Amino acid sequence: MPKPKKHVFVCVQSRPMGHPRPSCSQKNCTEVAEEFYGQLQQRQLFDQIQVTTTSCLGPCSEGPSVLVYPEGIMYGGVSKQDVAAIYDEHLLNDQPVERLKVAEEFWA
Amino acid sequence: MPKPKKHVFVCVQSRPMGHPRPSCSQKNCTEVAEEFYGQLQQRQLFDQIQVTTTSCLGPCSEGPSVLVYPEGIMYGGVSKQDVAAIYDEHLLNDQPVERLKVAEEFWA
Repeated sequence: MPKPKKHVFVCVQSRPMGHPRPSCSQKNCTEVAEEFYGQLQQRQLFDQIQVTTTSCLGPCSEGPSVLVYPEGIMYGGVSKQDVAAIYDEHLLNDQPVERLKVAEEFWA
Repeated sequence: MPKPKKHVFVCVQSRPMGHPRPSCSQKNCTEVAEEFYGQLQQRQLFDQIQVTTTSCLGPCSEGPSVLVYPEGIMYGGVSKQDVAAIYDEHLLNDQPVERLKVAEEFWA
């Protein structure tokens, strides 16, 4: 298995009902993760892109959170519909999707 | 929350008994993850290092697996006792711990 050119980390943290901190799980992160895995398969990019689900990535209020390394770009409020743009623009064309980046107060 | 200088991803994947693929969970990855979090606290490195647990990182046969970005260095067979060296040598001094790197066939 080669080291990927891009490694996508998708937060799938959940928290109990009533927990004071929001979680990506409350905001449909599971379908975001599934969409990343689905498009990885459809596009057959296993040799260059890796997708991994994670525990809390930090900016919970801004979730669903998606972090791409090696650049260390943090996206927030990612929906299933945004995943194609992240593949097309960032993962395959090295142009991070500016509209989805979290504000600098959360990750800079 | 600042973007970390080093981001440590610790696989905590588990699999059912009898599953044909080994898992990091079978090999005490939980105590490895706890040791990374414990030393982060003891050393008060929250402003420069982030630790996140993950699903499967790939080289299951070589686990427990620990991946450090932005370099993309994959360590294998990491024990609780190895964590201090990863902090001292790699995370704080930019010298990856050669003896813990997985072989190139697993990540290169």
